[in-house]
Amino acid sequence: MTLTSRTAATFSPPVMEARRWLDGVQFTPETPLLNVSQAAPLDPPPQALRAHIAEVALHDDTAHLYGAVLGDDALRQEIASQWSAAYGGVIVPEQVGITAGCNQAFAATIASLAGEGDEVILPTPWYFNHKMWLDMQGVTAVALSVGDGMLPSVEGAAALITERTRAIVLVSPNNPTGVEYPPELLRGFYELAQAHGIRLIVDETYRDFDSRVGAPHDLFGDDDWSDALVHLYSFSKAYRLTGHRVGAIVGGVGFMAEVEKFLDTVAICPNRLGQRAALWGMQNLGDWLAKERLDILDRRAAITDNLHKLTDKGWRLLGLGAYFAYFEHPFEMASDELACDLVKQARVLVLPGTMFMPDADQDGKKQLRIAFANVTRPEIGALFDRLAAYQPN
Amino acid sequence: MTLTSRTAATFSPPVMEARRWLDGVQFTPETPLLNVSQAAPLDPPPQALRAHIAEVALHDDTAHLYGAVLGDDALRQEIASQWSAAYGGVIVPEQVGITAGCNQAFAATIASLAGEGDEVILPTPWYFNHKMWLDMQGVTAVALSVGDGMLPSVEGAAALITERTRAIVLVSPNNPTGVEYPPELLRGFYELAQAHGIRLIVDETYRDFDSRVGAPHDLFGDDDWSDALVHLYSFSKAYRLTGHRVGAIVGGVGFMAEVEKFLDTVAICPNRLGQRAALWGMQNLGDWLAKERLDILDRRAAITDNLHKLTDKGWRLLGLGAYFAYFEHPFEMASDELACDLVKQARVLVLPGTMFMPDADQDGKKQLRIAFANVTRPEIGALFDRLAAYQPN
Repeated sequence: MTLTSRTAATFSPPVMEARRWLDGVQFTPETPLLNVSQAAPLDPPPQALRAHIAEVALHDDTAHLYGAVLGDDALRQEIASQWSAAYGGVIVPEQVGITAGCNQAFAATIASLAGEGDEVILPTPWYFNHKMWLDMQGVTAVALSVGDGMLPSVEGAAALITERTRAIVLVSPNNPTGVEYPPELLRGFYELAQAHGIRLIVDETYRDFDSRVGAPHDLFGDDDWSDALVHLYSFSKAYRLTGHRVGAIVGGVGFMAEVEKFLDTVAICPNRLGQRAALWGMQNLGDWLAKERLDILDRRAAITDNLHKLTDKGWRLLGLGAYFAYFEHPFEMASDELACDLVKQARVLVLPGTMFMPDADQDGKKQLRIAFANVTRPEIGALFDRLAAYQPN
Repeated sequence: MTLTSRTAATFSPPVMEARRWLDGVQFTPETPLLNVSQAAPLDPPPQALRAHIAEVALHDDTAHLYGAVLGDDALRQEIASQWSAAYGGVIVPEQVGITAGCNQAFAATIASLAGEGDEVILPTPWYFNHKMWLDMQGVTAVALSVGDGMLPSVEGAAALITERTRAIVLVSPNNPTGVEYPPELLRGFYELAQAHGIRLIVDETYRDFDSRVGAPHDLFGDDDWSDALVHLYSFSKAYRLTGHRVGAIVGGVGFMAEVEKFLDTVAICPNRLGQRAALWGMQNLGDWLAKERLDILDRRAAITDNLHKLTDKGWRLLGLGAYFAYFEHPFEMASDELACDLVKQARVLVLPGTMFMPDADQDGKKQLRIAFANVTRPEIGALFDRLAAYQPN
């Protein structure tokens, strides 16, 4: 490969590297693999939603043909309407763009805001696909280490802003730490972005599983929110539509015209059936989603209930929320070696902190992410037993 | 918007600009709009394919969930197998990647081959989305003017190659000219790429409507084709799956590992239902597609049959094939003004040559693209009558 290519500037997808650790390891019915590496539902969407998709495929011609670059009007309207109510603000459909998933929403946002040599501030641990995209776009990812409670500080970010800074990216609830950022913290970052004429990008992929009641922030309530805020969302988790690839961007109308250029060349339009599925989910699965949230919160509680098993062995819980528990492990070895060894010795697949950190950062070597959304209470008990029993050879 | 952003480096999607020309123009049942601007089927896929999509949505859980970044194994295998037979070569599934449409295939290919300041050679007239993506990636699109028969010359390309050149892009059958490139010409470009250690990217989106019998080139027959060739394909036209977003890249295994990085961050995976639709189409719609091709070839013949109406008025046919007829018009005005006026005066929507050319190029001002795939024989007669009757005010 050409050394100067965009892709040559970044690493291979970490999730696939982790999957390779499974190669050659035998799992038995007595000691099955406990896979807590992936932040995605493993079950299909509810039957009624599947029936709706089938119905649309059979009877609606337009669902098979090109649509608007920024997505179907009906879905943009539904998001504008539901978000306006949920966040207590005013969002119009022209401020909403539909994407093929939230990764694409991030890619389009960065392409619309930054160019070669520009800088974007990412708290660490970061979501690795954000880092990969910045690398590929020639945009420098400026790492902002989190402090107490795995929260980034506004002052810390302010100190990193230069004339090349174009945006600050926050993920809340956070991936990989699970931490839910307080509304005041989000407002602090928003005001910092406003003061510097840059954007605050808030990725709210895991919003529907927030343990708190009410809006996670009040930023959409500002009259001029669209000058400083870009909001990203995913339908993958809420309605189990991972394979349909539907996400959204909410931002200013001028910004959306830039997003449209990117999406026209990379996607032409989001797939139409997936958009119909997302719309139907929004209009019909409110109660179902509320129950999904309670299930996730119960799994989160199971983490707390079993926590002593690990803290007794020197583990430390750094963050907990949404789909994730983020731990500091007590061993001398680096987390990537540890994660690889845990597959063989404990039949557990987790992602190491090194995957969420710059190479030079030492904290990542002590950290592990457990994505617990797909493991039941008994499995969480078994998981913690296995981790507690683990000792490096 | 930040002036340095990637999207700021390019123009807005031309197709949408053309659509705005329709604003405020009244069309009656007697003089309906003849829209020959868009290169896409307007009818939905055949009922049996729709039934298959519905069946999969209802009964196959995996079709709703994340799949492999480079696409489903079954579809990659089917492409490898059918392409190997069709082109008389050896293509293995690991050399195939599935994308959300052929635009994304192009985007991923460029990101994998070129970076900031690199150069890619595009014959003009070019496909505007190719130009947009190169602009956004900081890659210089080096224009290669076509010569006789709207064919680019190997010598012309050779003269443009510098140490920053990473690839040459050909589209055959061509968009916008419709011209089918002779196999010898493609081989000439392939050998040029080989000699310079760069890639020949051949976009074969319109392959299924080629008027010639047999393989459009024999490049896959070379043992080491993957060192120099990247092939792009779209399922949108063949099976009328435009709204499902499925395309493909065929290239080397090492190259595909780079493509995978790009797709992981921009798409995660192609949508699963669309992939199933494409697979079913490949396995069941061979005869149906053969008939579709004959329909398009009959429309192409209708262009020839009606041609005298325009040549009598000074128009000149520059290219004809696939979905397109490409014309030189006889008027003094620039083609973009003309195209805009044709909506009002002739109730015809075409794309002007200026959309397929660098701004400085004068040829584009004389040229128009007619995408005839969606107009019937009688409509083609009416279209040519209207164009023949047109006189600028």
